[in-house]
Amino acid sequence: MTEKARNEHLVIFQPSGSRGYVGDGVTIVDASRQLGVELESVCGGQATCGKCKVRIEEGFFERFGIESSMGHLSPIEEREKKFFEKHTELKGYRLSCVTEIHGDVLIFVPEESRKGKQVVRKAATERDIDVNPAVRKYYVELVPATLEDTTGDWERLTEALQEEHGITGLTIDYLALLSLQGIVRKGDWKVTVSVWMGKEVIAVDPGCVEESYGVAVDVGTTTVAAYLCELSSGKLLASDSMMNPQVTYGEDVMSRITYAMTQKGGLKKMNDAIISGLNRLAGQVAVQAGIKRRDIVDWTIVGNTAMHHIYMNIYPEYIGKAPFPPALHASMDVKARDMGLKISPGAYVHALPIEAGFVGADNVGVLIAEEPYNRDDLMLVIDIGTNGELVLGNKEKLISSSCATGPAFEGAHIKYGMRAAPGAIEKVQIDPETKEPRYKVIGKDQWSDELKEMGARGICGSGIIDVVAQMYVAGVILKTGRMNIELDHPRMREGEDGWEYVLAWADETSIGQDIAIQQGDIRAVQLAKGAMYAAAKLMMRRLGIDKLDRVILAGAFGSYIDSTQAMIMGLFPDCDLEKVYAVGNAAGDGARIALLNVKKREEANVYARKVEYVELTVEKDFERQFAQAMYFPHMKDKFPHLDGLIPDGKKDK
Amino acid sequence: MTEKARNEHLVIFQPSGSRGYVGDGVTIVDASRQLGVELESVCGGQATCGKCKVRIEEGFFERFGIESSMGHLSPIEEREKKFFEKHTELKGYRLSCVTEIHGDVLIFVPEESRKGKQVVRKAATERDIDVNPAVRKYYVELVPATLEDTTGDWERLTEALQEEHGITGLTIDYLALLSLQGIVRKGDWKVTVSVWMGKEVIAVDPGCVEESYGVAVDVGTTTVAAYLCELSSGKLLASDSMMNPQVTYGEDVMSRITYAMTQKGGLKKMNDAIISGLNRLAGQVAVQAGIKRRDIVDWTIVGNTAMHHIYMNIYPEYIGKAPFPPALHASMDVKARDMGLKISPGAYVHALPIEAGFVGADNVGVLIAEEPYNRDDLMLVIDIGTNGELVLGNKEKLISSSCATGPAFEGAHIKYGMRAAPGAIEKVQIDPETKEPRYKVIGKDQWSDELKEMGARGICGSGIIDVVAQMYVAGVILKTGRMNIELDHPRMREGEDGWEYVLAWADETSIGQDIAIQQGDIRAVQLAKGAMYAAAKLMMRRLGIDKLDRVILAGAFGSYIDSTQAMIMGLFPDCDLEKVYAVGNAAGDGARIALLNVKKREEANVYARKVEYVELTVEKDFERQFAQAMYFPHMKDKFPHLDGLIPDGKKDK
Repeated sequence: MTEKARNEHLVIFQPSGSRGYVGDGVTIVDASRQLGVELESVCGGQATCGKCKVRIEEGFFERFGIESSMGHLSPIEEREKKFFEKHTELKGYRLSCVTEIHGDVLIFVPEESRKGKQVVRKAATERDIDVNPAVRKYYVELVPATLEDTTGDWERLTEALQEEHGITGLTIDYLALLSLQGIVRKGDWKVTVSVWMGKEVIAVDPGCVEESYGVAVDVGTTTVAAYLCELSSGKLLASDSMMNPQVTYGEDVMSRITYAMTQKGGLKKMNDAIISGLNRLAGQVAVQAGIKRRDIVDWTIVGNTAMHHIYMNIYPEYIGKAPFPPALHASMDVKARDMGLKISPGAYVHALPIEAGFVGADNVGVLIAEEPYNRDDLMLVIDIGTNGELVLGNKEKLISSSCATGPAFEGAHIKYGMRAAPGAIEKVQIDPETKEPRYKVIGKDQWSDELKEMGARGICGSGIIDVVAQMYVAGVILKTGRMNIELDHPRMREGEDGWEYVLAWADETSIGQDIAIQQGDIRAVQLAKGAMYAAAKLMMRRLGIDKLDRVILAGAFGSYIDSTQAMIMGLFPDCDLEKVYAVGNAAGDGARIALLNVKKREEANVYARKVEYVELTVEKDFERQFAQAMYFPHMKDKFPHLDGLIPDGKKDK
Repeated sequence: MTEKARNEHLVIFQPSGSRGYVGDGVTIVDASRQLGVELESVCGGQATCGKCKVRIEEGFFERFGIESSMGHLSPIEEREKKFFEKHTELKGYRLSCVTEIHGDVLIFVPEESRKGKQVVRKAATERDIDVNPAVRKYYVELVPATLEDTTGDWERLTEALQEEHGITGLTIDYLALLSLQGIVRKGDWKVTVSVWMGKEVIAVDPGCVEESYGVAVDVGTTTVAAYLCELSSGKLLASDSMMNPQVTYGEDVMSRITYAMTQKGGLKKMNDAIISGLNRLAGQVAVQAGIKRRDIVDWTIVGNTAMHHIYMNIYPEYIGKAPFPPALHASMDVKARDMGLKISPGAYVHALPIEAGFVGADNVGVLIAEEPYNRDDLMLVIDIGTNGELVLGNKEKLISSSCATGPAFEGAHIKYGMRAAPGAIEKVQIDPETKEPRYKVIGKDQWSDELKEMGARGICGSGIIDVVAQMYVAGVILKTGRMNIELDHPRMREGEDGWEYVLAWADETSIGQDIAIQQGDIRAVQLAKGAMYAAAKLMMRRLGIDKLDRVILAGAFGSYIDSTQAMIMGLFPDCDLEKVYAVGNAAGDGARIALLNVKKREEANVYARKVEYVELTVEKDFERQFAQAMYFPHMKDKFPHLDGLIPDGKKDK
C-alpha cells in the first residue's frame, strides 16, 4: 500500500487476476479499460443499467489491517444508491461507472458483468481454394553419424532431402539450425522438415509429422479476424476474432495516423497493441484446433494501408500527409520473430501488397478472392468497414477508391449502437401501414412479435441498415433523412436529443430503457452511405459506365446485410437485386487464399499494381455528388430495380 | 549496506565504476574478475610482487557513518605486512590477492595495477586481395512523390536502381524498410543503398556515401582478433584483439564443451560472453577508424569447430562426444541481429564453413589464404593455438587433422608463463659453451646483456619455444627432455618444484624473484610439440610421403616463432629451413579475404568439403608415435637440415 504516496493505487481484478496501478480518482470502469478487463457498460455511465456492477473484496483490506474499503473508493452517490435500493441482493457491490478509486482495491467481476464476446462476424466463407501452400513438410530418414562418417547433421539432412524428395539448393533458418542436432537425435535420425517456398528449411520436427498449420489474418480498423488452416488439405480448422486493440488510440484510420505522428512512442504503442493482440488470437485459434502456437509455420496478413503500416511497424507519417505515398506497395516476406509474432521461430509472415491511398492489402484480399480481373461483367466490390473501399471494373480495367464512412455501420456514433454481440438487434422490419416494427436479436431465434423476452441491448450494423431503410419505406423518415414529425404515432416522440422513433420498449430490453433511433443516428448513417454511394458513382463516371452488372458486398458484416435494404437506403447505385450479393469477409478470405496458394500471392502482387487508384475527394463536384447521395436512396438517381419497393416521388416539405 | 544480511557485499571499483555483489570471503582479485575489472597479478597470489595493490576508499565508509574499512576486509596478514613495510608510501593500500571481502567496499585501482593491454599478436599480414565484396553501395536519385504519382518509396527506389545501375530483383531487409521513408526525405530523395550479394538492400543512407565498412573476426580459443576494412578499396583501417572472454569457462576447447554440457545455461553464458566481447571489439576498431559501429555492413567470422558452435549459439554437445558430427559444415549467412551483434541492423554475418573434427573455420581461413589446393609442392600448414590444426597436401589431395596441444605455447601450464604482453620474455639464446642465456623482453629494444633493467615478468609462447630449443642445444636438457642434473652451473638448481634452470635473476625482473624454467615446464612443452609432430607424421604416412616441401606456421603467434628453434625442438618434421615460414594470423587473414572477396567464400565452401579429415587418435600406433615425438627433436627421425645445429647422437642415461 506504499504506492499511495505517489498518488497511484493498486487495482486487482478477479477472477482474471489483471492488476496494475491507476491514478487517483479514476472510475473502476476506466481502470478496467486501462488494465484490459472487459466490463459491460450499456447505459454509458449513467448508473442506471447496473450492467457494470462489481463486488468489492473486503477480505483484501483485512489482510492489510484495514477495516473496510471506506476511503479507498468514492462514497456511494445518489444515482448509485437508487439502483441498489432496487437490488438489495447485491450486497457489497458497486457500480463501476461512477465509483472512483482512491486507494488500493481488489475487485471481483461477476460473470454477468463481463463483456459478452463479440459474435465472429468475420466468419470465413466456404470457398474452393486450390491448395498450393508456401510451406510443405517432408519426412526424411537420415543416415546416422558414425566415427567413419562424421558429416554435419545439416549436410546429412540436405543429402536425404535430395535423395528422398529430389529437393536441392536449400538453406536453413538460423534458429531452426540451432535446434537441429537435438531434434535429429530425438527423432532417432527420422525427422520432418518444413520447407518454405522450396527454398528454406524453417522448422524441423522429430519423427513423421503430416499436418502443418498456417494462420490468415485480416486486420480491420475495428475488428481483427484470424483463420487457422491445415496447409496440406486447405481445411479451415478454427477461426476467431477480436476488437482491434488499437481502437483505444483512435476510432478510424486518420485518428490513428495522427496518434502516431503526434504522440511520443505512438507507433510503438499501437504496433505493440496489435502484435500482442495477434499473438493472443493465434493462441486462441491454436487452442481451438488442439495444436500449439509454435506449430504455426506460415502466416498471411491483410489490412488497409494504415493498418498495414502499423502492423508492419512502419511509421505512417507519410501516408498521412500529401502526397500520401506508402513505404512500399509490394508484398513482403518477413520473419515472424522480427515482427514479434510468437509462432514457429523460423516461420515467415507474408504481408499482402497494398494498392494506393487507403486501399490496402485487405482490398487485395478481396481482389484475389473475387477475381474481377478475370470477368467480363462490370463488378463493383464494396468493402464496408470503418473505412470504405471500392473496386470497380472487369478484365479490361480496374479502378479502386476509398472513402471515410466512419464507424456508424459498426455501431459507433449511433445512440444505441453496439457491436454484433448477443443482445444486438440485427434485423428490423417496419409495417408500412401500422409503422409497428418487429426485430430479431443476436442469440434469439424468434422475432420480437413471437417472443416477449427479447433482452435487446442495442442495435448493430446490419440492424442499422435495416431500420433506416424500413423507416424510409414506412415514411417515418423522409427522402432527405428528416424525421417525419407530422406522423402521429406512439413510437414517434420528442426526446432529450430531439425526435426519435422507438424501436424497442424498455420492457423488451435488458437495459431497462427504450431503444430508439434518433435524428442524429440517421444523419450519421447518411454521411456513411452518402460517401460510399458518391464514390461508386464517381468511379462509374471515370470508367464511362452508367450501369452496374454486379455488386459484391464484402467486409466484416457484409454477409449479414440484407442487400435489398442496403439498396433501398442507397448504399450503392441501382443494380439487379439478384446480382447483389455478400461474400462475407472477402479480405479475410483473400488472406486465407494467399495462405493456401502461393500462385495467388503472385496474382495479388500483379493486380495490386494494375488496379488504378482514383482519389475522389479531389474531383471537382465531389461535394455536390456527396450531398445528393445523402438522400434516400439518392436525390436524383433512378432505381428501376426498386420499383414498388420505395416511396415514389415523395418529397420533403 | 542492507545486503550484508544475505552474506553478499557490494563492491565498487574506481575509476571504472564497475560494481556488483560478491560472496563473503572472496578476495579482491577474484571480485575484480567477477566484475570484469582487469587487475595485474604477477606473483600469482603470493603477496610478494605488489602488482595488485589497490587503495581502499575510506571516505566511502564515512558516508555511511562507519569509522573505517575495519571489519569490511580481512586483517592485514604477515606476507602483506612485509610488503607494505618495504613500501611505506602506500598508505591506505591493500594487496588484492590476499585481501578478503567481508563487507561493502569502494576500491580504487591505481594506473599501475591495471592490467597491461595484450600486444596485438594477431596483427594482419599484408596480402594482395582481389576486392569483390559482398556488400556494395549504390547512389541513386529518386523521383519525388507527387499527388499524381503516389507510388511507394520502395518501388521508387527499385525503379531508380534499375534505371541508374541496371540492378533488378532486389528485396529489402525488414528493418531497413522501416527507416526507408525518413531517410529518403532526409536525403532530399537522394540516397545511397547498401546491397548484399546483389540480392538484398540491407541499409539505406541519406545522400551520397562512398565508403562501406566490414569487419573480419578470428575467434581463437584464447585470443580474438578483429580487422576493420573499407570494402570498396579493401584497405585495412584498424585492427584490435582481446582475450576470448570464454577463458573463464575453460582454457581449452574440451573444457568449454564440457562446461556447456554440464552447466545449466552454460552455452548461453559462453555465447553471451563472446558476443558482447565482439560488440566491444567492433566498437574499438570503429573508434580507431573514426566510424560508428552502425556503419559496419558486413562481417565474416572464423574459429575452430567448438568456437564456431559457441559463437553461433549451437549447443556443442555432439561435437563433444563420439562420433563428433558438427551441426553443419557449410558456411552460413545470418542476420547480425539474430546473433546479437550490434552493427548495421540489416547486416549479415558470413560464418565461414568448418571442416571436420576440431578443424574449423579458422583452418578454412588458412586454406583460402595459403591456397595449398593450387600448389604442386607438398605443404604442411600448422596452425598453432590452444588447439593445433594441420593441413597437409597439394592440389592433388588435402588432408587435415587436429591435436590437443594445450595452452603451453600460450604461456599457461608454464610456471612463469604469461601472455604476450609487456615484460614477457619473447626471445632466448643460450651460449652452448657457458650455458649463459640472453633474452629479449616485449617492450624493450635491447637484449638482456646490453641492458640492466629488463623488468621481465614472465615468458610467452615464442620465448618458450626458444628457451626449450636452446636448453636442448646447450645440453641443459637431454634428448628425452630430462634436466641434465649433472651439469654444474650456478643457474641449475633444485628448487621446491624440482630441478630448474634460471633464465633471469630476480634483479632483472619486476616481480622480485628469479624466472626459471622447470622440469614440469619442459614436460608441458613436450606434450604439446609431441602431439603436433606425431600428427604431422601420421598425416604424411597417410599420404605416403616422407618429406615436406614446405612448412607454414600459422596461428596467433606463428609469425613470432623462430622457425629454426621450432624445428630444433621438433615441432614438425625436417624441412628445408628456407621453406619454413610464418604467415602471421592466417585464420584472421582468411576471414579478411572472405570479407573482401565473395569468390573466396565459394572457394572456402568447396575446399572445406574437399579436405579429408583424418582422426589420428584412432590410428593404431598413435601412442607410440606420440611417445617418440616427445623427444627433442624426435626419438628416431633424422633432421638433415639441422646438421650441426643440434647435439648429435647424445643420449640420456
